[in-house]
Amino acid sequence: MQWISDSRILIVGLGLIGGSYAKALKRLGYHVMAIDTRQEAIDYALENHIIKEGYTDVREEVVSSADAVIFGLYPKVFLDWIDKYQSYFKPGTMLTDVTGVKSCIVYEIQEKLRPDVEFIGSHPMAGREVYGVENADDGIFRGANFIITPTERNSKQAIRWVGSLGRILGFSRISVLTPEEHDEMIGYLSQLTHCIAVALMTCSDNEHLVDYTGDSFRDLTRIANINDLMWSELFMLNRDALLKYMDTFLDEFASLRDMIRDGEVGELREKMRLSTKRRAYFNKPAD
Amino acid sequence: MQWISDSRILIVGLGLIGGSYAKALKRLGYHVMAIDTRQEAIDYALENHIIKEGYTDVREEVVSSADAVIFGLYPKVFLDWIDKYQSYFKPGTMLTDVTGVKSCIVYEIQEKLRPDVEFIGSHPMAGREVYGVENADDGIFRGANFIITPTERNSKQAIRWVGSLGRILGFSRISVLTPEEHDEMIGYLSQLTHCIAVALMTCSDNEHLVDYTGDSFRDLTRIANINDLMWSELFMLNRDALLKYMDTFLDEFASLRDMIRDGEVGELREKMRLSTKRRAYFNKPAD
Repeated sequence: MQWISDSRILIVGLGLIGGSYAKALKRLGYHVMAIDTRQEAIDYALENHIIKEGYTDVREEVVSSADAVIFGLYPKVFLDWIDKYQSYFKPGTMLTDVTGVKSCIVYEIQEKLRPDVEFIGSHPMAGREVYGVENADDGIFRGANFIITPTERNSKQAIRWVGSLGRILGFSRISVLTPEEHDEMIGYLSQLTHCIAVALMTCSDNEHLVDYTGDSFRDLTRIANINDLMWSELFMLNRDALLKYMDTFLDEFASLRDMIRDGEVGELREKMRLSTKRRAYFNKPAD
Repeated sequence: MQWISDSRILIVGLGLIGGSYAKALKRLGYHVMAIDTRQEAIDYALENHIIKEGYTDVREEVVSSADAVIFGLYPKVFLDWIDKYQSYFKPGTMLTDVTGVKSCIVYEIQEKLRPDVEFIGSHPMAGREVYGVENADDGIFRGANFIITPTERNSKQAIRWVGSLGRILGFSRISVLTPEEHDEMIGYLSQLTHCIAVALMTCSDNEHLVDYTGDSFRDLTRIANINDLMWSELFMLNRDALLKYMDTFLDEFASLRDMIRDGEVGELREKMRLSTKRRAYFNKPAD
């Protein structure tokens, strides 16, 4: 399909990201439909004109009316959904997702999928520490990265199609990575950082310290407010890459500890200068 | 001294925090003077009306004209300054500082200080990852914590005096801790978080990942842009408390790693729920 304005887009899983997609696509004039098991999510989205149609069950006439389907489900639920309902798609339907891990699902989905529809994986690198369509906000896509993870099975049209999706949603940068490169990258940049925030928050009973904290601790632990169901699943599905980076970080942190213990100020300062130099690459204009 | 508007305040060390103090106090109508070895800092502050008088050397007539002196120096330089120039203070001068470590300097300063002037330690829990009076911004004090660290040598008037300073600078919460409690707290909330950010930034060559990063990595490494001279000195001066928390964090992180390695999803989720629960205490209204 092309992104012409009378296209019918079905969003399956109307959470924070699915809801934010819906908001953006509805505003752009698309016919946005949604399926979510939570009646409140559908009611909220209808009342607030985030979707045009919404359902809590999976109806063949709805699924088959969609030109494109975007999955905002947890990985395992997503795989089950395809098993159960893929017969409903009309031929030529384009499918994508928002899942935070890729190699463990992209190949499996493509393997089991009917040959007359196409699934291309993508990952919007945006989020908030709140949940549900009630907090949907397509402003989070501005300045953010959108990653496409094609395999050999994907057509050039599908890659272009999902790239256009990223652009019309408002993402600032569209990149292409293999599913493996994606998972490696996400193990370090996202999953490791979440593990660090959790360990920092849980390693010491700190409630009495609230009155004294500065911004650095708040910034480091913002993501310590974590959806345990979703993130434990994501960690398990990307275990090898995550464990590799957890060990790398542990070694580095332990060596920093040794420098401080041994009073190796020269080495410590060198490490800090490397840190400052590397951090400069990550500055955003508004940072 | 009382905070009456014709008071003469001398700021020694016109960096980011000293400069931000100067900005706030000048706007409130005080006669603000500054000493800094950097001619550019003095020139900038005079041109931008952040101070009324500024000097790159230490003149007796300037120091002795001050009702209060605020030290924005690195710990060791601060100790040396007192040795060299304390004879210049006029009797009754009130002294405070902005230093990020306390037990290693508060007692020593008070020990060596003339009996007719009084030093009361304080720590403004505010900062930015930029330096110098050129980046001074007294807006950073809003919503921030101001900590007073009195000892048995301090008078009630001095504690009230420095509390008033915190309030007129715009801090939201003024707290009193012993120097030891302060250092323990800062070891965890501030120094440990800086060590984590540095280790996360230096543990992996990550420049090629800039195109893919989300906000969580940016937030966690904002403070990885670090002043190596200042922070290595602060770490060394608070080594015991910092090392204790580094080891606590290492143990916690390693145990999280083991849970993930062993697929202990129940324990992992429980840890995440504890993390979320604790983080809720640290939410600011604007967070």
